Amino acid sequence: MHEPVKSPVGVLGLPAAQLQHFCAVRSASVSLTAPLSAEDCAGQSMPDASPAKWHLAHTTWFFETFILEKFEPDFAPFHESFRFLFNSYYNGIGDKYPRGHRGMLTRPALSQVLAYRENVDARVARLFTLEFPRAVAHELSSLLELGLHHEQQHQELILTDIKHLLSLNPLFPCYDEAAPRPAHASALQAWIDFPASIVEIGHVGAGFHFDNEEPRHRQFVEAYALSSRLVTCGEFAAFVADGGYRDPSFWLSEGWDFVKAQGLTQPLYWHRDSEGHWQEFTLQGLRQLDPDAPVTHVSYFEAAAFAAWAGARLPTEAEWESSAHHPALAQLFGTVWQWTSSSYAPYPGFSTSAGALGEYNGKFMVNQYVLRGSSCATPVGHSRSTYRNFFPATARWQFTGIRLAR
Amino acid sequence: MHEPVKSPVGVLGLPAAQLQHFCAVRSASVSLTAPLSAEDCAGQSMPDASPAKWHLAHTTWFFETFILEKFEPDFAPFHESFRFLFNSYYNGIGDKYPRGHRGMLTRPALSQVLAYRENVDARVARLFTLEFPRAVAHELSSLLELGLHHEQQHQELILTDIKHLLSLNPLFPCYDEAAPRPAHASALQAWIDFPASIVEIGHVGAGFHFDNEEPRHRQFVEAYALSSRLVTCGEFAAFVADGGYRDPSFWLSEGWDFVKAQGLTQPLYWHRDSEGHWQEFTLQGLRQLDPDAPVTHVSYFEAAAFAAWAGARLPTEAEWESSAHHPALAQLFGTVWQWTSSSYAPYPGFSTSAGALGEYNGKFMVNQYVLRGSSCATPVGHSRSTYRNFFPATARWQFTGIRLAR
Amino acid sequence: MHEPVKSPVGVLGLPAAQLQHFCAVRSASVSLTAPLSAEDCAGQSMPDASPAKWHLAHTTWFFETFILEKFEPDFAPFHESFRFLFNSYYNGIGDKYPRGHRGMLTRPALSQVLAYRENVDARVARLFTLEFPRAVAHELSSLLELGLHHEQQHQELILTDIKHLLSLNPLFPCYDEAAPRPAHASALQAWIDFPASIVEIGHVGAGFHFDNEEPRHRQFVEAYALSSRLVTCGEFAAFVADGGYRDPSFWLSEGWDFVKAQGLTQPLYWHRDSEGHWQEFTLQGLRQLDPDAPVTHVSYFEAAAFAAWAGARLPTEAEWESSAHHPALAQLFGTVWQWTSSSYAPYPGFSTSAGALGEYNGKFMVNQYVLRGSSCATPVGHSRSTYRNFFPATARWQFTGIRLAR
Amino acid sequence: MHEPVKSPVGVLGLPAAQLQHFCAVRSASVSLTAPLSAEDCAGQSMPDASPAKWHLAHTTWFFETFILEKFEPDFAPFHESFRFLFNSYYNGIGDKYPRGHRGMLTRPALSQVLAYRENVDARVARLFTLEFPRAVAHELSSLLELGLHHEQQHQELILTDIKHLLSLNPLFPCYDEAAPRPAHASALQAWIDFPASIVEIGHVGAGFHFDNEEPRHRQFVEAYALSSRLVTCGEFAAFVADGGYRDPSFWLSEGWDFVKAQGLTQPLYWHRDSEGHWQEFTLQGLRQLDPDAPVTHVSYFEAAAFAAWAGARLPTEAEWESSAHHPALAQLFGTVWQWTSSSYAPYPGFSTSAGALGEYNGKFMVNQYVLRGSSCATPVGHSRSTYRNFFPATARWQFTGIRLAR
Repeated sequence: MHEPVKSPVGVLGLPAAQLQHFCAVRSASVSLTAPLSAEDCAGQSMPDASPAKWHLAHTTWFFETFILEKFEPDFAPFHESFRFLFNSYYNGIGDKYPRGHRGMLTRPALSQVLAYRENVDARVARLFTLEFPRAVAHELSSLLELGLHHEQQHQELILTDIKHLLSLNPLFPCYDEAAPRPAHASALQAWIDFPASIVEIGHVGAGFHFDNEEPRHRQFVEAYALSSRLVTCGEFAAFVADGGYRDPSFWLSEGWDFVKAQGLTQPLYWHRDSEGHWQEFTLQGLRQLDPDAPVTHVSYFEAAAFAAWAGARLPTEAEWESSAHHPALAQLFGTVWQWTSSSYAPYPGFSTSAGALGEYNGKFMVNQYVLRGSSCATPVGHSRSTYRNFFPATARWQFTGIRLAR
Repeated sequence: MHEPVKSPVGVLGLPAAQLQHFCAVRSASVSLTAPLSAEDCAGQSMPDASPAKWHLAHTTWFFETFILEKFEPDFAPFHESFRFLFNSYYNGIGDKYPRGHRGMLTRPALSQVLAYRENVDARVARLFTLEFPRAVAHELSSLLELGLHHEQQHQELILTDIKHLLSLNPLFPCYDEAAPRPAHASALQAWIDFPASIVEIGHVGAGFHFDNEEPRHRQFVEAYALSSRLVTCGEFAAFVADGGYRDPSFWLSEGWDFVKAQGLTQPLYWHRDSEGHWQEFTLQGLRQLDPDAPVTHVSYFEAAAFAAWAGARLPTEAEWESSAHHPALAQLFGTVWQWTSSSYAPYPGFSTSAGALGEYNGKFMVNQYVLRGSSCATPVGHSRSTYRNFFPATARWQFTGIRLAR
Repeated sequence: MHEPVKSPVGVLGLPAAQLQHFCAVRSASVSLTAPLSAEDCAGQSMPDASPAKWHLAHTTWFFETFILEKFEPDFAPFHESFRFLFNSYYNGIGDKYPRGHRGMLTRPALSQVLAYRENVDARVARLFTLEFPRAVAHELSSLLELGLHHEQQHQELILTDIKHLLSLNPLFPCYDEAAPRPAHASALQAWIDFPASIVEIGHVGAGFHFDNEEPRHRQFVEAYALSSRLVTCGEFAAFVADGGYRDPSFWLSEGWDFVKAQGLTQPLYWHRDSEGHWQEFTLQGLRQLDPDAPVTHVSYFEAAAFAAWAGARLPTEAEWESSAHHPALAQLFGTVWQWTSSSYAPYPGFSTSAGALGEYNGKFMVNQYVLRGSSCATPVGHSRSTYRNFFPATARWQFTGIRLAR
Repeated sequence: MHEPVKSPVGVLGLPAAQLQHFCAVRSASVSLTAPLSAEDCAGQSMPDASPAKWHLAHTTWFFETFILEKFEPDFAPFHESFRFLFNSYYNGIGDKYPRGHRGMLTRPALSQVLAYRENVDARVARLFTLEFPRAVAHELSSLLELGLHHEQQHQELILTDIKHLLSLNPLFPCYDEAAPRPAHASALQAWIDFPASIVEIGHVGAGFHFDNEEPRHRQFVEAYALSSRLVTCGEFAAFVADGGYRDPSFWLSEGWDFVKAQGLTQPLYWHRDSEGHWQEFTLQGLRQLDPDAPVTHVSYFEAAAFAAWAGARLPTEAEWESSAHHPALAQLFGTVWQWTSSSYAPYPGFSTSAGALGEYNGKFMVNQYVLRGSSCATPVGHSRSTYRNFFPATARWQFTGIRLAR
């Protein structure tokens, strides 16, 4: 427990702007659950997805565990069991509640989780009225920023997880008419060429970033071209119509096994209506498929198979990042995440931080593929060109799409 | 759709007493959910268990499908999709929603299911104001009675399923301080002897019964003895302490595989506290184990292993039923269901009824074992000596216990 | 280790006829493998089936463990590891080699297993030259007889297991042109009636029998009729053609789940040729289906579904046994085993013997169904009307068939 | 079917030296099975491993399918079914026999497979007596070379697969006293430094190589150091003794799940003797662990965990390849394969060849990790610095080991 120093020399309060940011991010999470009932917030559709209530609690647990417990005078946990229930993957901090059982946590009630949020928010806000030694204040401010970015990651998951849950309901309920949908590209498709060169990728400088974006480093990239826009639903429907899901020659061997084992015949949320027309389940419910919208909810395997069918390939993350400021490239951010062919791996010189937070990203650097950009469900302010999202090659419930390279 | 006849000759209304019974049973189901939140009512802990909300809806679906659809003038379904969502095992009536996905049905909301109940209840009540041809009135009255007994079965499942759900919550929440618990026997254990004879078992006569209790028939039973009371927690704890779960010689071969595969070391809801004393999760939360209470939540395999350890065996259902009126036998009803060694099979001369309701019981007559008596969770009026409950040999979440024979 | 007594008073040798029987049964096992290569004898097609080499070794292990170890002066095991490798389900005798791994036992070689057989046979034969106290001689003689019946059970398994192994080979190889096939019935089908009565079933008297056939006891059987002959392939093909595998109304609920999970559309070894005609894989290879031959390789679920489709049912074991001497009933023995509706359970008064041999049958008395009669693959002399064979409801690779009752 | 041209102008025979090479490689495969019985050659220990007989047949199938069928006048298959049975992963060439069922192919017998080899060898040898148009002769020669390298890959698998099969046998049989074992390093461990630079990796020039080694291309590599020798058994035993398999902080998240799910506590073939000393199962049977020998039979997860424990990391394949000619690096080839941190991915500009052979390598470029060098089981002449071996992160049965980087 840290004891704040009272001396006026060398002490510092936290910046007021950060408090505003904290309040904005925290209330945005709760707003996402406004269209949902307590029942909706408690449901879990698969082990990979979590109930919205759990997301609300886990992000709060993060602030309680990594900030209040360390910096609050006279810290006491809101509820002892929450430290166990709402831990996720930090093996360093005690046992974990089984991931696939989160939908069984009908207690604590949503109302109690909201009370937990209010309590932790108030206690964090109180830290802004205190003064800390300069180094402590810096550490605290950094951890707060990390906690808010962590919360923004979970805001996207709230949307993708609730979409998956509602998609399994034969009533095909609408989450919210105003919910985000991936937007069209405004221009025609073109190939943008880039020459061979040594590029630098990775984060450098002052802004926030996750540990996996460091260190900035050099890579040699051979000449390549990127598509100016994302693959559309209409283009993907042509792949389907051409027997794309029935011809193993387009697929990675493991991808073909996946297609056969799961009986896949189209992207995750596509359905045919009684006349054979494609419909798509969206956060607005079931809609006619929009052929000009970017295709989404495809796995890495489907993205790679489509690329093979189209005579192209997926870009590497170095190709993507080093060209991400090119003005002719549309739909880089805010539409759908773009699968790259890059396996998620540490950058040269990457080192894991000490302590439980050091587990943040490095633990997952095997059998995952990097996605770049951001999606319509990504909170504003959470996108940047160095951002490395990652999922297994089978993941389909995120807003994932395809930008071709060659 | 049946058109009620208006002529005064040969027509009949339904008896008013049945309406009272209908109202009493239907409101009892809702009362069982009074201690629960909407979240609690939506949770599903395993495919074998269903959410309380689903039980409330499914029992209502039964009345809508088998009574209103057939007997209500101008029938229209409350909601078309409910016919699919809340069907259970009647293959004859369209496709079924996957059993293991019931916990994902966050919509319809509990409030909508309660509205469904009120709607169907009102429409059924309206049938009591009409007159029907005599034969129709009799059929309708019989179906109503069947629906109410079906609902009582689900009342017991509401309790066992919610107990299982809450048991997986690390908070070990209390369902209700006033909830049922199995009661002690008042007298010492004794062996009650019965001679070899031809006995008659099965239902005969006017009272309600399920199809599987018919026809009454003769069986030859060799001489046997039954224990006057049920096996207690203290006795079962002695079996555990004696290495009962570690010695294959007590177990059926398949039971031993089950014990090893599941890592079983005690009955379902037993836990050791930090000092090694037994605690038991109950509908009142976690409690010290009561050594004089009957042991419950044991599988058939555990019951058979305990009996082997005790130098005894489980009774057959003919032994149980033919002696069920003996005054020296305590705890026959209202405590815990008693595993018999009888595989669930049709009685000689049993025939399945035509139509979807004909699937009611006969479909399950394989790889299940009969339980006799009734439990503390069985609604009053739902017990009788000919009643044949049945579960697979692995089932543990019901209020199941052990009466020894030899 | 037993020390044979030399005194002439009260001692006894083993009967020479038993030695002849011993030699005949033992050499019959080896003869069954004459059409097979060492590779064939080592293959295992599924965990339920064992390699022929394993059967040859396990039956030998039985004599070594239960006879030589107990009665041979200066006993020493042929090979220490064989005691572990060729044990099967006797938990009392040390750990078991995993059942599903038997096909990986490429060592010991078939030649070594044959040497093991010769060694044990010679040592058992030597026992016939010794004298034992009268009680010991009786026990030894009984154990020898048990060992030979045990070996005969495995002779049938050698045939059914090798049939299953060869059936998975796309070459559809012939085992032996002279191998057994189920024979036709010679007469037309008729229903034979039996009145209600108290019958006695179970073994009594001097002949050999397994423990599960005891004790002989009374059962009350209501009036019933049995079919004079078995269901034919032609009759079963009519069930298939009538959509029998597509209509859940004929099936037990668990049977229907089995059909769907396994994608079953016909009996185990039936195939359609390129023109849609039925072929059947036999021990002679692939043959045209013979419509007059009894249907075989059907599970309990398929037998019960066929009976439901035919408006009949399966007999109970009491019905079967008590009428097994009726002259109008054909194909009782030596054709195919006949599923009964009786769950495999202890007879009233049954008690398990002490020691490892006591595990012989009682351990399996759960979730298995009794088959009566015997099959074309059953060794001559191994059939009797009290014999209780048993398999799970899903088993299809034995020579199992259907006799209807009503 | 190709019709050889008889005209003397522009025609070419195959080089005699290639025939010698062909005979040498083909007979080496058969020699590997000399210590094995027909039963040994038929056994399959897991779906990832194949019977030695299958390897002998599949490599022959390759020559029959891709060479004889294309270039032999009057081609007819040796046996129609072999084309199906011994196909492996070439989806383009008809259906495949299920990989996990290869151990059930007791027919064709080993003797028939050896006859198949002799037949195909003779027919390939006959091609050396013919003349072909120049371009055809070149294509044929290239395919022959590919077939021989393919066969050498399977020679290594024969050894690793038979080792795995024998390891599951409680007799711990010796394959061959003269079989290969990984050799010690002769010098002390040292760190060899390499500066940051643009390196070129990948194959260029005339020698044989697989498609995945192309094209040679540039990569930027930051400064790094490699260990001069491989990690030893003694060093790995220290990791085990230090709780390496019990502390999640050393492990990738998916690796930790793997350790827990499989209950791993040491490398694949390590056992403790009754006094707690390490023993290792080898191709010579069970031996005392040699602390100075390189550790082998570790998965990628174990290699990465060991590296984390040792404060180091695994090298990338660019680091490995670009320094592979440094004189201070020992044990690069012929000892054990060295896991790299590089996910198996196409080189920039890689393109899949057309036709069934085009499936050769590209299909597997997902969720696999590259291994570099070669092992003691790799045939002489099958190693080169550009060679890219690959296996999933869980694979343990190959001769895989660890070279540290930092």
